[in-house]
Amino acid sequence: MHIRLINPNSTASMTTQALESALRVASAGTRVTAVNPVGTPVSIEGSTDEAMAVPAMLSEIRAGEAQGIDAYVIACFDDPGLHAAREVARVPVIGICQAAVQVAMTISRRFSVVTTLPRSVPIIEDMVQAYGAGHHCRTVRAINLPVLGLEEDPVTAERLLLDEIERAKIEDRAEAIVLGCAGMSSLCERLSEATGVPVIDGVTAALKIAEALVGAGYSTSKVNGYDYPREKGVFDGAVALPRVGAARAALAE
Amino acid sequence: MHIRLINPNSTASMTTQALESALRVASAGTRVTAVNPVGTPVSIEGSTDEAMAVPAMLSEIRAGEAQGIDAYVIACFDDPGLHAAREVARVPVIGICQAAVQVAMTISRRFSVVTTLPRSVPIIEDMVQAYGAGHHCRTVRAINLPVLGLEEDPVTAERLLLDEIERAKIEDRAEAIVLGCAGMSSLCERLSEATGVPVIDGVTAALKIAEALVGAGYSTSKVNGYDYPREKGVFDGAVALPRVGAARAALAE
Amino acid sequence: MHIRLINPNSTASMTTQALESALRVASAGTRVTAVNPVGTPVSIEGSTDEAMAVPAMLSEIRAGEAQGIDAYVIACFDDPGLHAAREVARVPVIGICQAAVQVAMTISRRFSVVTTLPRSVPIIEDMVQAYGAGHHCRTVRAINLPVLGLEEDPVTAERLLLDEIERAKIEDRAEAIVLGCAGMSSLCERLSEATGVPVIDGVTAALKIAEALVGAGYSTSKVNGYDYPREKGVFDGAVALPRVGAARAALAE
Amino acid sequence: MHIRLINPNSTASMTTQALESALRVASAGTRVTAVNPVGTPVSIEGSTDEAMAVPAMLSEIRAGEAQGIDAYVIACFDDPGLHAAREVARVPVIGICQAAVQVAMTISRRFSVVTTLPRSVPIIEDMVQAYGAGHHCRTVRAINLPVLGLEEDPVTAERLLLDEIERAKIEDRAEAIVLGCAGMSSLCERLSEATGVPVIDGVTAALKIAEALVGAGYSTSKVNGYDYPREKGVFDGAVALPRVGAARAALAE
Amino acid sequence: MHIRLINPNSTASMTTQALESALRVASAGTRVTAVNPVGTPVSIEGSTDEAMAVPAMLSEIRAGEAQGIDAYVIACFDDPGLHAAREVARVPVIGICQAAVQVAMTISRRFSVVTTLPRSVPIIEDMVQAYGAGHHCRTVRAINLPVLGLEEDPVTAERLLLDEIERAKIEDRAEAIVLGCAGMSSLCERLSEATGVPVIDGVTAALKIAEALVGAGYSTSKVNGYDYPREKGVFDGAVALPRVGAARAALAE
Amino acid sequence: MHIRLINPNSTASMTTQALESALRVASAGTRVTAVNPVGTPVSIEGSTDEAMAVPAMLSEIRAGEAQGIDAYVIACFDDPGLHAAREVARVPVIGICQAAVQVAMTISRRFSVVTTLPRSVPIIEDMVQAYGAGHHCRTVRAINLPVLGLEEDPVTAERLLLDEIERAKIEDRAEAIVLGCAGMSSLCERLSEATGVPVIDGVTAALKIAEALVGAGYSTSKVNGYDYPREKGVFDGAVALPRVGAARAALAE
Repeated sequence: MHIRLINPNSTASMTTQALESALRVASAGTRVTAVNPVGTPVSIEGSTDEAMAVPAMLSEIRAGEAQGIDAYVIACFDDPGLHAAREVARVPVIGICQAAVQVAMTISRRFSVVTTLPRSVPIIEDMVQAYGAGHHCRTVRAINLPVLGLEEDPVTAERLLLDEIERAKIEDRAEAIVLGCAGMSSLCERLSEATGVPVIDGVTAALKIAEALVGAGYSTSKVNGYDYPREKGVFDGAVALPRVGAARAALAE
Repeated sequence: MHIRLINPNSTASMTTQALESALRVASAGTRVTAVNPVGTPVSIEGSTDEAMAVPAMLSEIRAGEAQGIDAYVIACFDDPGLHAAREVARVPVIGICQAAVQVAMTISRRFSVVTTLPRSVPIIEDMVQAYGAGHHCRTVRAINLPVLGLEEDPVTAERLLLDEIERAKIEDRAEAIVLGCAGMSSLCERLSEATGVPVIDGVTAALKIAEALVGAGYSTSKVNGYDYPREKGVFDGAVALPRVGAARAALAE
Repeated sequence: MHIRLINPNSTASMTTQALESALRVASAGTRVTAVNPVGTPVSIEGSTDEAMAVPAMLSEIRAGEAQGIDAYVIACFDDPGLHAAREVARVPVIGICQAAVQVAMTISRRFSVVTTLPRSVPIIEDMVQAYGAGHHCRTVRAINLPVLGLEEDPVTAERLLLDEIERAKIEDRAEAIVLGCAGMSSLCERLSEATGVPVIDGVTAALKIAEALVGAGYSTSKVNGYDYPREKGVFDGAVALPRVGAARAALAE
Repeated sequence: MHIRLINPNSTASMTTQALESALRVASAGTRVTAVNPVGTPVSIEGSTDEAMAVPAMLSEIRAGEAQGIDAYVIACFDDPGLHAAREVARVPVIGICQAAVQVAMTISRRFSVVTTLPRSVPIIEDMVQAYGAGHHCRTVRAINLPVLGLEEDPVTAERLLLDEIERAKIEDRAEAIVLGCAGMSSLCERLSEATGVPVIDGVTAALKIAEALVGAGYSTSKVNGYDYPREKGVFDGAVALPRVGAARAALAE
Repeated sequence: MHIRLINPNSTASMTTQALESALRVASAGTRVTAVNPVGTPVSIEGSTDEAMAVPAMLSEIRAGEAQGIDAYVIACFDDPGLHAAREVARVPVIGICQAAVQVAMTISRRFSVVTTLPRSVPIIEDMVQAYGAGHHCRTVRAINLPVLGLEEDPVTAERLLLDEIERAKIEDRAEAIVLGCAGMSSLCERLSEATGVPVIDGVTAALKIAEALVGAGYSTSKVNGYDYPREKGVFDGAVALPRVGAARAALAE
Repeated sequence: MHIRLINPNSTASMTTQALESALRVASAGTRVTAVNPVGTPVSIEGSTDEAMAVPAMLSEIRAGEAQGIDAYVIACFDDPGLHAAREVARVPVIGICQAAVQVAMTISRRFSVVTTLPRSVPIIEDMVQAYGAGHHCRTVRAINLPVLGLEEDPVTAERLLLDEIERAKIEDRAEAIVLGCAGMSSLCERLSEATGVPVIDGVTAALKIAEALVGAGYSTSKVNGYDYPREKGVFDGAVALPRVGAARAALAE
């Protein structure tokens, strides 16, 4: 079984971290490869960053489909382009936010999410709601550190996360914590040990759920909602990205 | 890894069927064993049947905990006693309804459930709602055949299921079908092939998700909601069931 | 009219307290009797305790049906086995949580619940949601005292409850308080007087609603969801409890 | 105990019918009186009719408060002015829609409502949602007969209701039926017998719940939401109605 | 285009303030006139005040319909009688709460409301929920100042509002603020400048949305829910208000 | 005031149609210009099409910001990239689905949507839910005609739309219809006249709401959720699109 991790941003060190987290838990028979497009934002912090990352990410999935990949994990907590990816792929596509939330709902009755910047809070709240966990998620919290700050200052990041998890335990009575950024992946185990509450990393969760779905023989339904994109003039095989320099067609001035 | 399937009802042939479904997809390193208590109802068709099956099912989990079981699958679509089981177990406990619903939300945008008797419809609707899939589930449908009818008259069962799935495709625009009874497990693949829509069997889904959670190192949170039951006088080791013939204490007449 | 209070736990003093609360408000023509099974947990503090209490509680309802009881009140705030009880009974079955919530929604616009242990908070939140009061209930609060602590140290219990109700008034702007444990029943009037906010005891509420439903001639609908349990081999009349010592049927090793 | 039924419309025969329904189930010690304002619409069919009926209805409640009434039942299924009435009254105020819905949620898992005109359907849906029964109510149905048509052509009315209830049984799998108009009150018992499904009349339900709340000693919370209306210049005791002929103050042309 | 502002209460200075806010933003071709009935409460602080204001407000709308008004704005944040007004009018009727909430959902992801008295909080929460913004609205806050206090002590009012908006920014992470009372209209711009967060005044929002709907040619749907009130005996043209001194018809004593 | 319509797909005739609809209702002082990127899909039929259109659409908004545009209308019913666009723009950005839904909730109590292909149904349902209209929207219907079919075979399109609207009137009791595709814009008036029910075109609605927000002085909140995208290396002014040929960084094989 070959699972492909796609980090939609262009920071290779984050891709490496995600891959390491995945490899730590991958089953014996599972091959995991990780890619990231270049040209996408260096981190995903808001809806624009998501939007700018998705077309290249979909290209990666088209490439993967040609290579016979068995499942994809989108290694960004905003699950950017998740619905689109499922249209493009025949095999399962797992978003790390959805996977983490499903695990949290299985091993606890109430959980909280801890993410990086406050601007991601409403984005994550909307996803949690859409995934059906609005009643089970106490609070989406932010440590107010940019995504890349996790790598640049890991000591501060860990301290901020520990503090926020402690607050979630007391103020939210959180029974589990979901880490709201793929870049926190490597801290997961230490945070769990230090706080005594299960801490869920979405990359780990998604990799294992991807394995599970492949193992069970599930593929993405091609009936209606996730059917392949309809063939259009602009899709010409290898080049699925919007042409650079697309001229504006000013129709009325 | 040792996963224990518990069929809460007392019909051994259904336990066998569930075990076979699980073994069909279990990973190489996974040992699966299946048990059912005796003395519980022969099938679970309503809340009373559930209630009568749960204490013995919890005994099975206590037994499993002593044996070092790594995860449990409760092989009844009503997920009877799921919250209680998670209190008793340190390891993950997977309900087949919750697992199937999580898979359905991952491989499709809208799904329908097809169960046995109409009386189970509101029970399943309430679970689907509690698992956060109320918006994604179009309809919970019933073929009006008792659970044991699935085994007694498999030809009729299959025909009724095929008809109902076709209706779900047309009337609900269902993109995936969840089988609403563990006893339909063996028909899953044939139904999917015949109808062209992904059909999800909860036993299969739950077994793989159990493997995934164990593989990732997740265990049930013991913080608050799923903490172990508090020690009480009546729990005296081996005999956790209510004593038979419990005298009524008539306090006021 | 004969209303039967069933305290699902096995602590007779709690049964007595509930009966006293019921008798305080019962109408002239109403006969109230109270029972508790023996062999069930001494208190209900979590889903396992609930599960272990329900089969014996259902036996009590079967016994009551033979005696011509007119309605049942399940005197535990978790409403354990409420759906099952309604399947077994022809007459109305009232859960004290549902009754209290219905009263709270009738005499106030926003209320809070105060219960014993934090572990019961998500359980009660889920019930409040299922009863349709998720929007009207501000917070489910816990005083962090075990159920039996209410009887063992009533002075502390009352002080903790007073403090928590004051917090609910200020922080939640609660307009009414629902007591989240049958064991708080005797304190209800004093708490209401001391805090100046209506305090609702579920036993009181349920007894009166039971009288109301019987008086109006309502019985539990036997159409579909609450129909009688289907006859099964294992139900053999007097002994409806699971047989003790149920052998595990190990099917595959 | 003295319970006052207020029919907000001005059709005395409907008030009589409601009173008869109430007297049929009132307890021995309960005195029931019924009033209707004159000058209000002859029936309540839409939000304007409601609005035009409420001030006079509130006057009735002010009058009742002076007489020491113990509880009020607002005998119109739209529950017009329910929140306002609870501000004005110290004692419980019961709306027949809310009462019927609470009974339906207690004796069944799923119910449907059958009302008169289609225009009332969204109004009732919004109330059902606000009362927390959106998940339990299958459909709000209309027989397309005006309110007064119930009295003018009772034979047609009964036939239309029977047909619609049969449809609700089949299409909705309704386990109970709520009658969506006080004017259907007298048909309740016959409809239930003819269809074999519990049929709930709001007047009956509300009268009994009013008795229950009074019997338990509950009164409307005066903390915050249902506090008495603040004293204002325009409220001058006996005349609480808006002065007729209120001049428009045209401020800017 | 002629838009009519109706202030349902009888305080002319509030009507003037609302008119000034509307004129500040009205388009060149828009004529705005403002009226308030006399005889209605001097301010709307609770459901009773609303109820007492609505019949006279509906009279204003009937008058406006005869004058060919193009749209109405109901200039009270409780949107009293909004559904009724839409039945009576052929043209659009805009409630300032609904308009402000729609703007808030368009220019921000999360907002909070700041109103006058705590008793209005659940009323506004219920409206926000009914308008579909329950997920987007963080908190409904109150400065605990009566409506008329806004005019009597504008310095205190402004200070309290500033403080509460600052709290909303920190505690709620509010991205926009909705002013929960028409009487705060004149402070809107200063509050926005002082706090750096968009502050939305409902009168302003509603006036512009009214212009928009008229400009687009929309009128209130007369299909079903907002159809004209059915003709009834009591409606006799000029006098649509309930007759004063309506005799109670005591039917049974 | 200068409002820019952006048709995210690359079919110029659809852009022209949208512009004509906008100009039909634009106020005297409003200048409307319309653009569409080239290189994006020729129509938006699913999440992939959306994703492929958004980066170029955001480029258009960046261009518009430099030109001093006062508001944007995204003229595609899927509201693709709406959150991202609001991050990029300082001025209001209106999605035609959200605008149409807000109008529908203002002029009716219940509405239905009629779109092109069934695959768009769950997408639109999710948006309607996110915009808070899940309770008010009866059904999202599809005529099973591709977007471009609206232009290629307008006679068939109109007939299919008429039929579906008639079904919505009868089966859904829809009080208003929202057209679920910008390409239906030119048919709006004829459909409304032929069916007698208000038909809402999102382009028209959005243009007028854009005018309204600009006229009121509202701009997109830059506090938190819609703050400008954080500066990142990859954003280098004129070229905001992902570079074509982005090399895959294969990290582990």
